Amino acid sequence: MVGNSLSPHGGELIERVIDPARAQKEVQGLTRIPIRGQLARECINIAYGFFSPLEGFMSKADVDSVVKSMTLASGYVWSIPIVFDMSDAEIREYGLKVGDVVVLTYQDNPLATLEVEEIFAYDKESMAKHVYGTTDDKHPGVRRTRAYKDKFVGGSVTLVNPPKINPPFDQFWYPPRALRERFAQRGWKKVVAHQTRNVPHAGHEWLMKGAWFSANADAILVNPVIGEKRQGDYIDEAIILTHDALRKAGYFKEDIHMTSLLLWDMRYAGPREAVFHAIVRKNLGCTHHMFGRDHAGVGTYYDTYAAHRIFNELPDLGIYPVKTLEWWYCPECAGIAYEEQCGHTEKAQKFSGSLIRSIIEDGVKPPRLIFRPEVFDIVMECAEKYGNGSPFVTESYLQRGDPVMTIPPL
Amino acid sequence: MVGNSLSPHGGELIERVIDPARAQKEVQGLTRIPIRGQLARECINIAYGFFSPLEGFMSKADVDSVVKSMTLASGYVWSIPIVFDMSDAEIREYGLKVGDVVVLTYQDNPLATLEVEEIFAYDKESMAKHVYGTTDDKHPGVRRTRAYKDKFVGGSVTLVNPPKINPPFDQFWYPPRALRERFAQRGWKKVVAHQTRNVPHAGHEWLMKGAWFSANADAILVNPVIGEKRQGDYIDEAIILTHDALRKAGYFKEDIHMTSLLLWDMRYAGPREAVFHAIVRKNLGCTHHMFGRDHAGVGTYYDTYAAHRIFNELPDLGIYPVKTLEWWYCPECAGIAYEEQCGHTEKAQKFSGSLIRSIIEDGVKPPRLIFRPEVFDIVMECAEKYGNGSPFVTESYLQRGDPVMTIPPL
Repeated sequence: MVGNSLSPHGGELIERVIDPARAQKEVQGLTRIPIRGQLARECINIAYGFFSPLEGFMSKADVDSVVKSMTLASGYVWSIPIVFDMSDAEIREYGLKVGDVVVLTYQDNPLATLEVEEIFAYDKESMAKHVYGTTDDKHPGVRRTRAYKDKFVGGSVTLVNPPKINPPFDQFWYPPRALRERFAQRGWKKVVAHQTRNVPHAGHEWLMKGAWFSANADAILVNPVIGEKRQGDYIDEAIILTHDALRKAGYFKEDIHMTSLLLWDMRYAGPREAVFHAIVRKNLGCTHHMFGRDHAGVGTYYDTYAAHRIFNELPDLGIYPVKTLEWWYCPECAGIAYEEQCGHTEKAQKFSGSLIRSIIEDGVKPPRLIFRPEVFDIVMECAEKYGNGSPFVTESYLQRGDPVMTIPPL
Repeated sequence: MVGNSLSPHGGELIERVIDPARAQKEVQGLTRIPIRGQLARECINIAYGFFSPLEGFMSKADVDSVVKSMTLASGYVWSIPIVFDMSDAEIREYGLKVGDVVVLTYQDNPLATLEVEEIFAYDKESMAKHVYGTTDDKHPGVRRTRAYKDKFVGGSVTLVNPPKINPPFDQFWYPPRALRERFAQRGWKKVVAHQTRNVPHAGHEWLMKGAWFSANADAILVNPVIGEKRQGDYIDEAIILTHDALRKAGYFKEDIHMTSLLLWDMRYAGPREAVFHAIVRKNLGCTHHMFGRDHAGVGTYYDTYAAHRIFNELPDLGIYPVKTLEWWYCPECAGIAYEEQCGHTEKAQKFSGSLIRSIIEDGVKPPRLIFRPEVFDIVMECAEKYGNGSPFVTESYLQRGDPVMTIPPL
């Protein structure tokens, strides 16, 4: 199992990044098409192999197979369509046709080339229904799907101009090859991935600690999803810096914990997104992935443990799902206890996002058993430094552009 | 691995217990030889298959192979000699010779028959040196070896008169077949064994909880060793009742925890005894065995983690050793933390037997985070009820005979 895990999904790590010296010549004279943040992040993920075995945006055969059977046309499991959308008007404007090579620009600078292999329409309602299990417009993934423009463009992507990751994110930027090398240097053979979009409380800490035991892991990789935000989310700076602070403050030993980031716009696809997270973390070199309650879900669209059950229906992905119930505060146990071990169900106090939010909004340091003072301090610092005084995403945070990366001129 | 674990050591559960109806006739006219508690407990273990594949006391070939190669003559791993010793004078007195069948009595009543297959001398100094790694007379196992009488009698043992286990021990008496049936009824496929001679503090609790995670176990079997005591040990009643109380008081859920007893006189053989414990718990149907620091050691004869390393040198025993470092109290983490996870090494407070003893001797309820009040209450009750006011073994406790079992008249 470990051997299989350590090989990327599809058997080979995709790397499609050209030498900057060559890149300038490569893009000369090509049609330039500006893209939005989501597509820029996906180009980067394809080119560095986060999305192995994808080499580009999906063809119609891949999209259809992913939507209906949760596999690529090649048979490899894949759960979320990765598509490049354009309007009919844009296609006309650029005169885009199969066989073209175009350069995709972000922040007005070249990022990647796209070899146009197919231009096709796809039934977005059917896509939403299959991927999200609903066509309810309140579901953010459904809305994202409906917002795709008229056509999808399939074709290979090659990075011509690596993004500069801005502070404070830069220290956590490890594409798969670099991360795998880092794991190897540290002698980590079994690494359990932890998906997060949260500032961690002690319950999160124990989710990771328990998963480390279950996986008999060498280490934990905390891999926050950094991408498009919604108002009220924690700001990305606070998420990643507080997780890193847990290790710096000794709640995790230096040699069992590491934080790296994943550029990804959450789809909130629940079980399908859990499968996607597993595949990406396998590409990062992880052997195990922690899945807790309501993984990557939203609202009440998915059962609490739908993301646990979906793995039962899939072939061995080569990354082992560590399926975890809840850690809670138990006054009888006088500490954090695990739902399957602690018999004080009546007295246990579950952690809730809103409890922690109210603690943070109060601005008064909570008990260290529940919420680490070092984490609290960093949340407050991040609010000042990055959030206009708020650790939660506000209108003004959303409007300041992409805080994570800069595409330099080529 | 699980399949292998579930099969007893040697492939077959030894059961050598005759129908009480037949037994009376069987023993008629046979020479009666009274035996001491240690041998009575070993007869019982052999007859119920705790010691599978042993069918009796060891022959010279087995003893020699166990001593020198840690295997039976058949090749199966075995680490502690199980021998029936007699003095030359006794052998003469009973006129004992190969081919005889004798009845072994305990508390003046028949317990088992012994078919005399071999009577032999063995070098006890060499035995001590190999099994204990020392011939220091301060080592209790060495003293026990030196105290063996002149000759060993090898031969099959058959139980003719099942012991009556006295309260409060009776509720914890599960011979291997009964325990395996209980596991099956409860749907427990992976069970991690916990060896103990202690009243549990929160550090012990987390040793079990952590091992349950590492083993991805369905349940924990707490299996205290009940046998010959030394002054200052916890009394057996307190050990077993407090462990059971942890579950009753909800520190473990009902459906993941069970307590059963093992009749065994500790040899304090460190790593060799760890191997023995693993084999016995495999016979009980456990798939995993927790081994912490200084397992089954005494004094400074063994390295702290010698019992971890010995398993690296052995073939797969079909029971998986869960090798565990320490859980400590960490004021920074504000709770019990694990040595390999917690980075506050300087501030961590290790649990020590003497700390807990001093708490108990003070008679003042300690913080529930460290020592559970329900456990404390039961220690005090047991001291009153069974220990002449002391939860520790005293001269008077030692002199009251065998509190654990009664052999009824046949």
